[in-house]
Amino acid sequence: MDSNIINPNHKLNFDTQRSFTATFGSHCRETLFPDDPFRQFKNEKGWGRLKTALQYFVPIFEWLPRYNLKLFRFDLLAGITITSLAIPQGISYAKLANIPPIIGLYSSFVPPLIYAVFGSSKHLAVGTVAACSLLIAESIGDEVSANDDPKLYLDLVFTAAFITGIFQTALGILRLGILVDFLSHSTITGFMGGTAIIICLQQLKGFLGITHFTHKTDVVHVLQAVFKQRHEWRWESALLGFIFLVFLQFTRYLRKRKPKLFWVSAMAPMLVVLVGGLFAYFAHGEKHGIAIVGHLHRGLNPLSINRLNFDSKYLPATLKAGLVTGLIALAEGIAIGRSFAIMKNEQIDGNKEMIAFGFMNIAGSLTSCYLTTGPFSKTAVNFNAGCRTAMSNVVMAIGMMLVLLVLAPLFSYTPLVALSTIIMSAMFGLVDYEEAYHLFKVDKFDFLICMAAFLGVSFISMDYGLILSVGLALLRALLYVARPATCRLGKIPDSTLFRDIQQYPASQRVPGVLVLQLGSPIYFANCNYIRERILRWIRDEEGGPDSTQVEHVLLDLTGVTSIDTTGIETLLEIHRMLDTRGIKIAIINPRLDVLEKLTRSHFVDKFGKESIFLGVEDAIESSLFFLKKDTSTE
Amino acid sequence: MDSNIINPNHKLNFDTQRSFTATFGSHCRETLFPDDPFRQFKNEKGWGRLKTALQYFVPIFEWLPRYNLKLFRFDLLAGITITSLAIPQGISYAKLANIPPIIGLYSSFVPPLIYAVFGSSKHLAVGTVAACSLLIAESIGDEVSANDDPKLYLDLVFTAAFITGIFQTALGILRLGILVDFLSHSTITGFMGGTAIIICLQQLKGFLGITHFTHKTDVVHVLQAVFKQRHEWRWESALLGFIFLVFLQFTRYLRKRKPKLFWVSAMAPMLVVLVGGLFAYFAHGEKHGIAIVGHLHRGLNPLSINRLNFDSKYLPATLKAGLVTGLIALAEGIAIGRSFAIMKNEQIDGNKEMIAFGFMNIAGSLTSCYLTTGPFSKTAVNFNAGCRTAMSNVVMAIGMMLVLLVLAPLFSYTPLVALSTIIMSAMFGLVDYEEAYHLFKVDKFDFLICMAAFLGVSFISMDYGLILSVGLALLRALLYVARPATCRLGKIPDSTLFRDIQQYPASQRVPGVLVLQLGSPIYFANCNYIRERILRWIRDEEGGPDSTQVEHVLLDLTGVTSIDTTGIETLLEIHRMLDTRGIKIAIINPRLDVLEKLTRSHFVDKFGKESIFLGVEDAIESSLFFLKKDTSTE
Repeated sequence: MDSNIINPNHKLNFDTQRSFTATFGSHCRETLFPDDPFRQFKNEKGWGRLKTALQYFVPIFEWLPRYNLKLFRFDLLAGITITSLAIPQGISYAKLANIPPIIGLYSSFVPPLIYAVFGSSKHLAVGTVAACSLLIAESIGDEVSANDDPKLYLDLVFTAAFITGIFQTALGILRLGILVDFLSHSTITGFMGGTAIIICLQQLKGFLGITHFTHKTDVVHVLQAVFKQRHEWRWESALLGFIFLVFLQFTRYLRKRKPKLFWVSAMAPMLVVLVGGLFAYFAHGEKHGIAIVGHLHRGLNPLSINRLNFDSKYLPATLKAGLVTGLIALAEGIAIGRSFAIMKNEQIDGNKEMIAFGFMNIAGSLTSCYLTTGPFSKTAVNFNAGCRTAMSNVVMAIGMMLVLLVLAPLFSYTPLVALSTIIMSAMFGLVDYEEAYHLFKVDKFDFLICMAAFLGVSFISMDYGLILSVGLALLRALLYVARPATCRLGKIPDSTLFRDIQQYPASQRVPGVLVLQLGSPIYFANCNYIRERILRWIRDEEGGPDSTQVEHVLLDLTGVTSIDTTGIETLLEIHRMLDTRGIKIAIINPRLDVLEKLTRSHFVDKFGKESIFLGVEDAIESSLFFLKKDTSTE
Repeated sequence: MDSNIINPNHKLNFDTQRSFTATFGSHCRETLFPDDPFRQFKNEKGWGRLKTALQYFVPIFEWLPRYNLKLFRFDLLAGITITSLAIPQGISYAKLANIPPIIGLYSSFVPPLIYAVFGSSKHLAVGTVAACSLLIAESIGDEVSANDDPKLYLDLVFTAAFITGIFQTALGILRLGILVDFLSHSTITGFMGGTAIIICLQQLKGFLGITHFTHKTDVVHVLQAVFKQRHEWRWESALLGFIFLVFLQFTRYLRKRKPKLFWVSAMAPMLVVLVGGLFAYFAHGEKHGIAIVGHLHRGLNPLSINRLNFDSKYLPATLKAGLVTGLIALAEGIAIGRSFAIMKNEQIDGNKEMIAFGFMNIAGSLTSCYLTTGPFSKTAVNFNAGCRTAMSNVVMAIGMMLVLLVLAPLFSYTPLVALSTIIMSAMFGLVDYEEAYHLFKVDKFDFLICMAAFLGVSFISMDYGLILSVGLALLRALLYVARPATCRLGKIPDSTLFRDIQQYPASQRVPGVLVLQLGSPIYFANCNYIRERILRWIRDEEGGPDSTQVEHVLLDLTGVTSIDTTGIETLLEIHRMLDTRGIKIAIINPRLDVLEKLTRSHFVDKFGKESIFLGVEDAIESSLFFLKKDTSTE
């Protein structure tokens, strides 16, 4: 009997064998070019194509020709606002990375210019980030002490930034944005939270004016160090810090209540630096235990090409620092660029962003900058200040140039405690309790992934926390593949729909016919499971309250998008096993990829074309036909 | 407008929220207890339950009470047959592991007895295997030379077997059979083929009578060693070997042509040993360059508890050897037990088998045995010889006891070349060209996984080959999760079925309505992809030959069995993005797990219950209603 007897139109299409090149090409396209980046070249020719290509690879050529004064007015304002944020943040985060504060200022000059040329986001503001700064200090500090050999240490920081740049560019060119996808939102939430905690604790050093401190970053060691050095605590420093912190937190609170006053909180860190500097200068703070930043040279970024150090002794440390921070910086920068683009209904090309980040870090590492990316706080300020294009980054770079050429020495008197409070205040916002609670409520495994990153970073180290969390996320993905969900289908009354009977208890079953929907994929990792599970469905049905004999098992493959050779063997095995028990088996709606492989492996010949159906209903009708025949011949 | 207007019966069931304990319990059950092992205890009470438990955990209690003389007749014959195979294989594989040949005989005495008590397979014959023997030699040989310090080397081999036993037992008790599932059929095929090649090459040493040899196993080093020592080649040894090899291969050929003559090929190795021994004894083979095994002591296994060596210096090597061989031994043993059980329509409990293998290796390691499992060749012979229960293993153990007590010295004269030919002949059968070609034809990625194992083992080392292959298999599983297949659905004419229009080109589309079926799962690793892909579907439709404006996007989630928080965010993002473009979006048939999470995360509230449908048809009707309204109001 052929399925066609039931309805000649419900024919399965067995004639869709594609060639290997076709399927391979389609797989490559989906894996590496899911966004179809070359679509704009299709209709172009000659010079037009060259122009499109240039505009595609160097986005500034796309927006600069259409740039006008009206747009510039917006960008100028936004640029000045982020410059005022960039100065205190640059100095603070450089201290966090244990490098001279001036490097932090340098890092807001060259990289923003490069990003303005190659970057595709309109809102991203380039700058250094706290988490990566600390991670660099941790990784390179393990190898070389920043106190004992500051020159070598700085050389290695530049080298790490160079490696980051090369790595990011390579990822972008090879279109491996897929790697960044594996840093899940839960991981980032936990990682940021944990980092915020340990960075805040690090700031207790500056806050309390402690001079001897641990180079470890975990909670236990840092708290031990803080309380062991109680005799070094300076109340003057703590008091000043407390006042600054209250002020900064107040401006943040203000911004939350009245979003239009965002510029108050954006300017606040600068104000703290200025007030602190004036205070330290006039009150001779140093005498009262208030340490200051120290001398800052006038002048633009010196070249640092000859400072790159690829000595095999230090290479493991710089490689580790470069690759890990590179990945985190990409994840943060791209996620942030993307989320602001979505608000304006624009698109960000992740792979192009990677190349822009890569170029900017390569150029930065050659001109005395360390790792930069698109930090959340700065980008949010840029967006709120009304930036229209990447020109705001250019404005910031010019502002920073003026600072470096003229004003730098003024910042020498900035008290360290002011920097500490700026960092702490920024970090408070990164511990996202609400998101963690949301994860806990919606998805316990996501919560686990988040907590692994949070606790790992807080109590072990930043890289272990990250590895632990990503490992768990990968484990989850593998477990998904290892245990695809199956369910039993029943017919929704008065319809032709077949749905999970657990979900729709009113749906109707046909006695003797077991309709199962298999989850995807059918792979080596789950074929033992699938076999066991199908046998259990049969056992449950036969041992159930009705205890009906199962005579037909219909496997609905609608959800199965992929199968491998072990999976095909398993289907055949199940066929054989059920056959010896006198149970007939049919499969329903194998998808394109699956049917191709089933045909190529001669599964279809062994299984029989008449046992493969297009829809559940046809298969049931065919089964009922058999059931009736069986009863009538008895 | 509510979907219920269309058909009051097609209501989505929003009231299936299960508690966390219920979902967690269900997930644990599916992950760790897919075969529902405790089902037989449900209807039992008191002593009955205790009896069932005892029979469950110690299978011999199940079959021994029903055992009778008729069954024993079959098992006796099978037991004698496998004993005759166990003697030459035991000696040969022990040589391969660089340990005294008598250990190979010991290993066929204690472990089979333990397996007979705890094992659940009726056909499995216990013994040593070539691949694991070589792997042990490779791993432990890296640390300690078997020639320089044979006692320490042997101690470490026992320790590795002990570690294997503990590991296998632990896997079984923790129900981590899932780990074995990750050794795919393709990996095993390639690994076995590669191992067979390098083992054959190793045998050239015995075959050509070479005395100085390399301890490396890869093809290049071994061939170099063979051709460098050309002056050591002995033609007498090679001639004898050639004759034996021809004889052995002939008996294998005979078995293939006439399966009833399987006992000829089963007895052949024993015959080769006997003939070789007689020849060496009477012709004074040693004088003609034919090396012999050397003295074998009479007596049963001595205890080896006090020989276990957990010195931290050697622990990495023994741990590595123990864990890797343990996993391979499990994969081979369980796969083989399972495939023979399927032929007889019986079931094997993988986790129980692991415990049985674990117990047998722990007991073995304490009584001078090394690693044992269920080798393919021996099990096939056992099956063909008509064994009925694990009693055949007991018969083999008793046979081996007699050999050890009485006949052992007779085997001292066995020529090494005879052992080499026995191993080589066994290995030829393991290179499965046909399977590799089948993989190539059906699934190129499976072929790649297989070749990675084959070439990795042949040219690098056994463990690297295995890691490379398993790594590729895992990568494939992750890529599956990262790039779920999407397709556009069309309506099959004269039916209510919606199918992939690429697969069924005749299916009908509704202008302005884009029905997409998403692949599973929607996870952090693929949410960027899914967003890009949906936008591309819309672009393709709008830029297509008809260039119709898309007004409705319907996402069919029938195949989506799992979603995480990032996935939910992504769906909301897509909703927002399409909203700003004036495109309406609806989702169809979210499954139980998915709908639960969508409800918990307030997605349903934000998205609107009226945009979630049970079937594609309802959703299209609702869209058409809107489309008409739009046109009529224009």
